[in-house]
Amino acid sequence: MSHTTDNLWQAIRDEVTTAAASEPMLASFLHMTVLRHKSFDDVLAFHLSSKLASATMDARALMELISEALQADPLIAAAARADIQAVRDRDPACKAFSTPLLFFKGYQALQCYRVAHWLWREGREALALHLQNRISEVFAVDIHPAARIGKGILLDHGTGFVVGETVVIDDNVSILQEVTLGGTGKESGDRHPKIRTGVLIGAGAKILGNIEIGTGAKVGAGSVVLEPVPPHVTVVGVPAHIVGNCDEAQPAQAMDHRIIEDQ
Amino acid sequence: MSHTTDNLWQAIRDEVTTAAASEPMLASFLHMTVLRHKSFDDVLAFHLSSKLASATMDARALMELISEALQADPLIAAAARADIQAVRDRDPACKAFSTPLLFFKGYQALQCYRVAHWLWREGREALALHLQNRISEVFAVDIHPAARIGKGILLDHGTGFVVGETVVIDDNVSILQEVTLGGTGKESGDRHPKIRTGVLIGAGAKILGNIEIGTGAKVGAGSVVLEPVPPHVTVVGVPAHIVGNCDEAQPAQAMDHRIIEDQ
Amino acid sequence: MSHTTDNLWQAIRDEVTTAAASEPMLASFLHMTVLRHKSFDDVLAFHLSSKLASATMDARALMELISEALQADPLIAAAARADIQAVRDRDPACKAFSTPLLFFKGYQALQCYRVAHWLWREGREALALHLQNRISEVFAVDIHPAARIGKGILLDHGTGFVVGETVVIDDNVSILQEVTLGGTGKESGDRHPKIRTGVLIGAGAKILGNIEIGTGAKVGAGSVVLEPVPPHVTVVGVPAHIVGNCDEAQPAQAMDHRIIEDQ
Amino acid sequence: MSHTTDNLWQAIRDEVTTAAASEPMLASFLHMTVLRHKSFDDVLAFHLSSKLASATMDARALMELISEALQADPLIAAAARADIQAVRDRDPACKAFSTPLLFFKGYQALQCYRVAHWLWREGREALALHLQNRISEVFAVDIHPAARIGKGILLDHGTGFVVGETVVIDDNVSILQEVTLGGTGKESGDRHPKIRTGVLIGAGAKILGNIEIGTGAKVGAGSVVLEPVPPHVTVVGVPAHIVGNCDEAQPAQAMDHRIIEDQ
Amino acid sequence: MSHTTDNLWQAIRDEVTTAAASEPMLASFLHMTVLRHKSFDDVLAFHLSSKLASATMDARALMELISEALQADPLIAAAARADIQAVRDRDPACKAFSTPLLFFKGYQALQCYRVAHWLWREGREALALHLQNRISEVFAVDIHPAARIGKGILLDHGTGFVVGETVVIDDNVSILQEVTLGGTGKESGDRHPKIRTGVLIGAGAKILGNIEIGTGAKVGAGSVVLEPVPPHVTVVGVPAHIVGNCDEAQPAQAMDHRIIEDQ
Amino acid sequence: MSHTTDNLWQAIRDEVTTAAASEPMLASFLHMTVLRHKSFDDVLAFHLSSKLASATMDARALMELISEALQADPLIAAAARADIQAVRDRDPACKAFSTPLLFFKGYQALQCYRVAHWLWREGREALALHLQNRISEVFAVDIHPAARIGKGILLDHGTGFVVGETVVIDDNVSILQEVTLGGTGKESGDRHPKIRTGVLIGAGAKILGNIEIGTGAKVGAGSVVLEPVPPHVTVVGVPAHIVGNCDEAQPAQAMDHRIIEDQ
Repeated sequence: MSHTTDNLWQAIRDEVTTAAASEPMLASFLHMTVLRHKSFDDVLAFHLSSKLASATMDARALMELISEALQADPLIAAAARADIQAVRDRDPACKAFSTPLLFFKGYQALQCYRVAHWLWREGREALALHLQNRISEVFAVDIHPAARIGKGILLDHGTGFVVGETVVIDDNVSILQEVTLGGTGKESGDRHPKIRTGVLIGAGAKILGNIEIGTGAKVGAGSVVLEPVPPHVTVVGVPAHIVGNCDEAQPAQAMDHRIIEDQ
Repeated sequence: MSHTTDNLWQAIRDEVTTAAASEPMLASFLHMTVLRHKSFDDVLAFHLSSKLASATMDARALMELISEALQADPLIAAAARADIQAVRDRDPACKAFSTPLLFFKGYQALQCYRVAHWLWREGREALALHLQNRISEVFAVDIHPAARIGKGILLDHGTGFVVGETVVIDDNVSILQEVTLGGTGKESGDRHPKIRTGVLIGAGAKILGNIEIGTGAKVGAGSVVLEPVPPHVTVVGVPAHIVGNCDEAQPAQAMDHRIIEDQ
Repeated sequence: MSHTTDNLWQAIRDEVTTAAASEPMLASFLHMTVLRHKSFDDVLAFHLSSKLASATMDARALMELISEALQADPLIAAAARADIQAVRDRDPACKAFSTPLLFFKGYQALQCYRVAHWLWREGREALALHLQNRISEVFAVDIHPAARIGKGILLDHGTGFVVGETVVIDDNVSILQEVTLGGTGKESGDRHPKIRTGVLIGAGAKILGNIEIGTGAKVGAGSVVLEPVPPHVTVVGVPAHIVGNCDEAQPAQAMDHRIIEDQ
Repeated sequence: MSHTTDNLWQAIRDEVTTAAASEPMLASFLHMTVLRHKSFDDVLAFHLSSKLASATMDARALMELISEALQADPLIAAAARADIQAVRDRDPACKAFSTPLLFFKGYQALQCYRVAHWLWREGREALALHLQNRISEVFAVDIHPAARIGKGILLDHGTGFVVGETVVIDDNVSILQEVTLGGTGKESGDRHPKIRTGVLIGAGAKILGNIEIGTGAKVGAGSVVLEPVPPHVTVVGVPAHIVGNCDEAQPAQAMDHRIIEDQ
Repeated sequence: MSHTTDNLWQAIRDEVTTAAASEPMLASFLHMTVLRHKSFDDVLAFHLSSKLASATMDARALMELISEALQADPLIAAAARADIQAVRDRDPACKAFSTPLLFFKGYQALQCYRVAHWLWREGREALALHLQNRISEVFAVDIHPAARIGKGILLDHGTGFVVGETVVIDDNVSILQEVTLGGTGKESGDRHPKIRTGVLIGAGAKILGNIEIGTGAKVGAGSVVLEPVPPHVTVVGVPAHIVGNCDEAQPAQAMDHRIIEDQ
Repeated sequence: MSHTTDNLWQAIRDEVTTAAASEPMLASFLHMTVLRHKSFDDVLAFHLSSKLASATMDARALMELISEALQADPLIAAAARADIQAVRDRDPACKAFSTPLLFFKGYQALQCYRVAHWLWREGREALALHLQNRISEVFAVDIHPAARIGKGILLDHGTGFVVGETVVIDDNVSILQEVTLGGTGKESGDRHPKIRTGVLIGAGAKILGNIEIGTGAKVGAGSVVLEPVPPHVTVVGVPAHIVGNCDEAQPAQAMDHRIIEDQ
């Protein structure tokens, strides 16, 4: 992406420049992490490597690995950008483009997963599992690197998110904290949920088995979903049942967690 | 607070002195973190900065920041003391005043939030968000710094606690792990729960929207609360419904998670 | 255990040797953590100490402590081996013996708890609480060191697992993420669940009070269990109720999270 | 020292502000170390503690200690300021006031010694020896904390500087690298050199025994001095002998290492 | 330099592969530092950044900086290669090409200086001074970044080496530990020694002032040189005087420190 | 060595217990490094590994290595004990047995060399060179691991000490800072000095070539010795010449650096 037309990068730089000037205590962090870099990708590689580094895995090696992934598969950075836009659009607590990048662990965990997923597809499974492990420790987000996750995802807060090996999440989905997209047994093979576009999954929901959550459906907080969910309906309960249609075209974007039962 | 009358500080020092003498493996940690300091506030600033420090944020800068907050707003340390008393009174697994201070991440996360909240009120929002991010990573506790939380709070275990921007929690509330006090949409404005004094919220409960949980109410574990809860009742279920009155004046203090449905 | 007959250790070495040769980026970690060591116990002590170390607790002191525990109580390493076998048998995402050891935080948290439990039994309570605190921070797993947990345990993902002081978990139990085995009040004494052999506890389940979950029972995801559960039944719901018999002799091994209600 | 009239602090801030703006790679370091602080003393305490910290001595504890010393004895900071002026005046490679503070290890080692010396005078000998040890490791400068050293000292490069227990160095002395001010035997008591004001000691010179190097004397590089040196003469050789008068009033300030033998 | 013809890189890889296989304790270090990299330059950037990193300067930023320098000025890596050859040829204690790269601090300090010198020439003086400072701390080698040093240099041991701002060292020079190439006063301008090709400078020698040490000259250990030295002579003493011709064409390569006075 | 009769260990423990009680700022370090350990050897292994650890070499691996050496060759710990006694006897600035162990880098560097030397003799040359490199960086002491050094050695201050591959130092030798025991050319083979028992070598002395410094000889500070030195004489100068007999039986113990020329 050329410098002159990279509006997101320019917006982030502008926000961060302002913050560094007004908050001396953050200036060091912001200069090291953002302002000394030349591109969004460089910031992403640096910042995620800060998060994932440990006493037994060097930050430099991780930064090089993430850069390698970003160069090899431009869709990773594209998704990372779309995710920022999704958070900015849907999370009223997010007032700047730089906020998810710098401070939201749901966002960061998701981007780290994207790198692990690239490794998995490249056949580098052991390293992908290592990243999964670090993501799990650092962010309390446990996404199997084989899972396939689209772009424009809001993973809000993120704590406790668990995603199984054969999960598919389409674009433009919003997922709150403590959601499980899990399996139902010890058989291998395709055994995890498929989440279609526009879906909103409330906090604490557990969706188990190779079932589809249809386009534009809404899963209420705390629900346990064991059956497929048709498009554009709302399900709630333990176990979940349909309580009505979901009027929003894209519940993921409306982010309305209220449950309005059809009369 | 004067030295001679600071009973909590004296009790903590006595407990820690005993522990350091009897457990050589802890002596180094206890001397560095507690025994070389002159006051409860100094220990708090040192210990919380140990937790929040990272490769890109220096422990010294954090310690100075926390000390600055504690000096600027004495209510922070007062609440930190009241919270210790609350844990000591209500958690049967807590047998010493030093235990929550040193070892309970729910307690520690809450005190870190208090510093972030002070920053937010001072208009230092970027730094407050940085602290929120580190609290979220280190303790798996994600409290928006704008939320208002009283004193005498028991945040037991803490993992997965999520608190939105316009939440209010009054004094003397007890909250178990994996509780969400969340919003219901993407509109900004006042959109999160108000928790009144004496409330007990069970593990995994999700309370969503600008609704009040009345004084002395009890929210059962795993409940999803989408409607206001009157004072002194017990609610359970997904979604939650009233199952009876709550006999204790202060369920937060009784900590009785049993659900006794009225006949 | 003699070198020549230690099949698990040999299998782990073989797996790791292959991984180190094929993934240069992991070779450094794998040599430091596994290949330079002489036994499974040495690897366990080194790797867990990497996880638990902090700015105020030295990795060397922790490694010595874990080695001391492993030598003093051979049942710890025996359980750590049985747990690997359990993960390998029951988790279809686990394709190697080295994977839980190196990369699964549920497994690692459980082994760290075993060391803390040994300390507790030795009367070294303060140090046990310190370990509990670090386990809670690093893995988001909060197990009271006094709890008694058998061997052959699958703690899958682990995030949010909370275990109270008087919990007992027998051998061959499988527990998913965000499970609470908690108390019901502030009284001390025996107040937490007893989980019998073969039990499977689904994601997000909360089991509260001194109640028994009978042999071979299954607790559905998201359930809140407040009453004893007889052997070989399935319970679901908030609060949980019996929905049928559980046909598998050992649900923990079948890992079938589907809820089949009896007609 | 009041803010408004602290010209040195203002000059340092101005220099560092310019450097941070023009060199993105240094901005993080300069903000953390200088620009976020309120005074010269704060910068000194922070920066020296960065240098002296180790795996077994926390940077925060060191920073507090240095701050304590600077508050207890204002002569330390006064000397630290005079030393900056000395370096700026006498070292042609030093073009800014911030340079010795930030980048010259001879200067930094000397200020660390000043803290160790304060500790020694306070009777805290073990801690003083600890600092001596760290200064010795970090800067390769080994000054006994009991030695007495004045202000306006240029310790150029510093490597290998060794100073014994009963050494006295008056104000306005310049000392090059690898100088020893040592003893002559294993007797305790006053046994080390006394260096009078204005003296210049060349690189590699060894001055041994309780002998006086008189005001305004010059000791040539590589000399071994075993006898007292009268004021305003130049000595050279192994062992050193007088080769002529020293015309400069203050050789320490002229920094002329040429040896001009009287005809 | 193309992969297929890079004999030095191939030799280093072969040596390190053998060492990693035979010494498990080093395997982690060797894989991280050498074997996972694709070129000599990558290893140099990684390894030097390991040495220079500190609590206030990130290893990743340093690695990027060194890589930037190596790419911008290919003469740096060419000199780094020639220096390895020089050490290998002249130091009988050096039996492998990888040894100076990995283990000789004189060699490492010199390569770090080359990066600082590139920065100085680019006008990035503050950053160059920062590197000088770190080189001085880590290696006890203090080379002004403005000094000009050729290739094929053996800096043996390195401790205490001090080089002033206007020093010039031509190619193929050998310098032992504790050598000073210093100035004679506080005037700025050209004031430091010029060392011509083939010169050998013995341990502890001090050469002061803008004087030339002629091609193929030899300066004896412990000498203090204040006058120009003609080509192909040997000088010794404090102050140094000519004691004879130097028969070797290139004393730097013969490394004969014996002083044979002409009769 | 049995506990009950280990007077040195008991003395060190007593001294350190007193220091930890009287200096809160050191208590953490002293408990971690000394008081929690069971033997002198354990402290040595822990403390030296603290010094040698780096971002690419784990402290635990180093501690295990040093312990392995101490167990395999009891002469290492015996020499480490004799060296403490030597420092205590000969250095008037040393007033406690714990001081060299904890705080004198000359002492620490020497013990690290002893481990490297054991590795060299075991044929583990690469690892020995790695230790040499770290000793050189950390302590500015560069001893080739093949050199042979006896016990009862005082290496005072240590900075700049350089020892070549074929050096032999007998028991009970005292060596000041910046001493070189070097070679004279690039030929391999036996080419370095042999220092006999009782010798005292002054600061900055350079002894070059395969020459013997006879029993009880004294080498004056700053001397350059190129010829063998008979027993019981004093040599000084550049180059060194005999200036008289050395009256002390063991100059290493008398530590008298004065040069008394025979009339």
